[in-house]
Amino acid sequence: MPGHTSTATPQITVNPTAVPHPHRAEGEAESPVFALHRGGKMQIASTVPLRDRADLSLAYTPGVAQVCTAIAAEPELARLYTWKSHTVAVVTDGTAVLGLGDIGPLAALPVMEGKAVLFKQFGGVDAVPICLDCTDTDELVETIVRLAPAFGGINLEDISAPRCFEIERRLRERLDIPVFHDDQHGTAIVLLAALRNAAKVTGRTLGELRAVISGAGAAGVAIAKILVNAGIGDVAVADSRGIVHAGRTDLTPVKQELAQLTNRAGLTGTLEQALAGADVFIGVSAGTVPESAVATMAPDCIIAAMANPDPEIHPDVARKYAAVVATGRSDFPNQVNNVLAFPGVFAGALAAGARQITEEMKLAAADALAAIVADELSPEHVIPSPFDPRVAPAVAAAVAAAAHAAEGVAQA
Amino acid sequence: MPGHTSTATPQITVNPTAVPHPHRAEGEAESPVFALHRGGKMQIASTVPLRDRADLSLAYTPGVAQVCTAIAAEPELARLYTWKSHTVAVVTDGTAVLGLGDIGPLAALPVMEGKAVLFKQFGGVDAVPICLDCTDTDELVETIVRLAPAFGGINLEDISAPRCFEIERRLRERLDIPVFHDDQHGTAIVLLAALRNAAKVTGRTLGELRAVISGAGAAGVAIAKILVNAGIGDVAVADSRGIVHAGRTDLTPVKQELAQLTNRAGLTGTLEQALAGADVFIGVSAGTVPESAVATMAPDCIIAAMANPDPEIHPDVARKYAAVVATGRSDFPNQVNNVLAFPGVFAGALAAGARQITEEMKLAAADALAAIVADELSPEHVIPSPFDPRVAPAVAAAVAAAAHAAEGVAQA
Repeated sequence: MPGHTSTATPQITVNPTAVPHPHRAEGEAESPVFALHRGGKMQIASTVPLRDRADLSLAYTPGVAQVCTAIAAEPELARLYTWKSHTVAVVTDGTAVLGLGDIGPLAALPVMEGKAVLFKQFGGVDAVPICLDCTDTDELVETIVRLAPAFGGINLEDISAPRCFEIERRLRERLDIPVFHDDQHGTAIVLLAALRNAAKVTGRTLGELRAVISGAGAAGVAIAKILVNAGIGDVAVADSRGIVHAGRTDLTPVKQELAQLTNRAGLTGTLEQALAGADVFIGVSAGTVPESAVATMAPDCIIAAMANPDPEIHPDVARKYAAVVATGRSDFPNQVNNVLAFPGVFAGALAAGARQITEEMKLAAADALAAIVADELSPEHVIPSPFDPRVAPAVAAAVAAAAHAAEGVAQA
Repeated sequence: MPGHTSTATPQITVNPTAVPHPHRAEGEAESPVFALHRGGKMQIASTVPLRDRADLSLAYTPGVAQVCTAIAAEPELARLYTWKSHTVAVVTDGTAVLGLGDIGPLAALPVMEGKAVLFKQFGGVDAVPICLDCTDTDELVETIVRLAPAFGGINLEDISAPRCFEIERRLRERLDIPVFHDDQHGTAIVLLAALRNAAKVTGRTLGELRAVISGAGAAGVAIAKILVNAGIGDVAVADSRGIVHAGRTDLTPVKQELAQLTNRAGLTGTLEQALAGADVFIGVSAGTVPESAVATMAPDCIIAAMANPDPEIHPDVARKYAAVVATGRSDFPNQVNNVLAFPGVFAGALAAGARQITEEMKLAAADALAAIVADELSPEHVIPSPFDPRVAPAVAAAVAAAAHAAEGVAQA
């Protein structure tokens, strides 16, 4: 049937004049961002021919019944004969979207679509946006468990702290597929890779560094944990009330755990006090750090100020004191960008058939990411570009190898 | 970045030797069905360029935040700027899959993928398989309501009766997007189209026909209702205990409603008794009808025996008594195939921005489907081929027009 291809029929084109648009006056041209978003950013594509009745009888009834019966008898076959093996759900409740906060599930959809197209473009992973209209922790966990069967992994996205910690923990217990809160672990992996190379380029090891993290939300908690697991000398975390330490009586359970894991030096007081003599500043908050505090950091210090769009310490100020400066912005060197991690992490975990993304897999991902820079390492280049085509394959291979090693399975 | 395309990276290919396969001996070739299903039948495709940082800043951060903010202020904009306007969820709980029954959500996935690729191929509609790991009616309703925001419609699939009726009814009340249980309404639309043309080719009107339906499950109930709404002379439904009538004390609520709507003649007794003198037999059950009962039907009768793979009345037998014979099988004339309806129905509903699929929209779909046959009408051709490229556009246009008419909106 020539001409009857899998492209959308004209009928589904929404007439833009039929939809009210508060951000544009009559006749005004759409901005490039809105023009690009017209119709959304993704679609489904069939990977099988459907030209005639014979094709239909294989891909659909009656043939498909054989595949269903086989999977009912042996569920592992779903990895071979469905899209589950290469597909993840990108799940949000819309409570912590970018810097916009709690804008709800529908308004979060453009971000989830963006994440999905990045998954595909950079990792070859098929990702489906799932925007959930509930915010209760129990309801979110139950809902995600129920919708999990058709997916090979769950990427949690833009779910506010502290609920995100419990939701991820409970889903990991309940599901036999990888569950990964990217705002935590994606950021932590990329930051660790950057820090490894920043230490290297300044002639030090991680074990010699004392770090201070501003922000005890999703990213701050995960970064603190991965730095401890990677062997950082010491790390202290500051929230809006100051340094997290065991003597504080206002700590959530997650911060109580942080107090045990971090701050061996037993620091108390403010973020600024912690910075005195510190080797590393890691900003994952919305605050700003005064230059006077930056000036008290150790020589050759490392500053990763990742708040967007306004870094906690502007790079122009940071460069006056630091040997290496990283941000979350694409218009300065050393962008700490999650897209360096999540596509390869899931690609590797799915390829290995991993049931979890373990701490070892995350550390392996960070090592692989750091290693890509290799000979190009310089203070202005401690982390690869998101468009370096070596990134996702290297991260995927490292993650898959770590998954196999954990299972004692020989690599293919 | 040449070569870094959106195709899957090799890492995600599952090694088939690593997955046990109970249906194939070592070295044995895969059957064509299993070979076709390798890796599943669908994937995600990006519709936007992601070549460099400039692209990334439009499709993802920071640009995407403008789109999120606009949708948060005006939710209707999601129809313009996300994939919601052309995307439906194909939702099952795996309790009534094909003729296989309750095989669970994971084993149902190949059917849902098949449905999704048919949606795309025939209607240009993007469809996502959602296989839910719960069977409780309340839980299913809540779960589907929660996951609805990212979708423009919900196609319920292979959910067992009688739960399917209540689930659909409650979802229609709760959601502002079309909800359509295809096993009910898809079958009903196509059957009505076939019956309109069968009546026409035998020189009668629907109002002159008395029909008997064997089966009071999802399809039987929906067919009975649409026939009543279309003006059938009379229709009686028989379940495994005989004809549904108001005098029976064993009826579920749905069958009580059927008893009110149907069987004006007040028939009681068995299916065979109802067939005596009937003009139409409609089979949507697993049973068989003895030839002796078929022989008692009216002259020029119409037989649509749609059980698969074994029709209630074999076409070779049916042809001895009937002027028009239809089945659910592709290897006999007049296949009543849902793919004639659901792609166009959703394409039309989505294009119109309809919030429900109303009875009027279903009747319009059936009329459009029947009209396509036109000059080609014959007893062996009362319904178009699924591969007739006119089908989905015609159904979509009729459904969209009915939606606009209902809203009093002038058609574009």
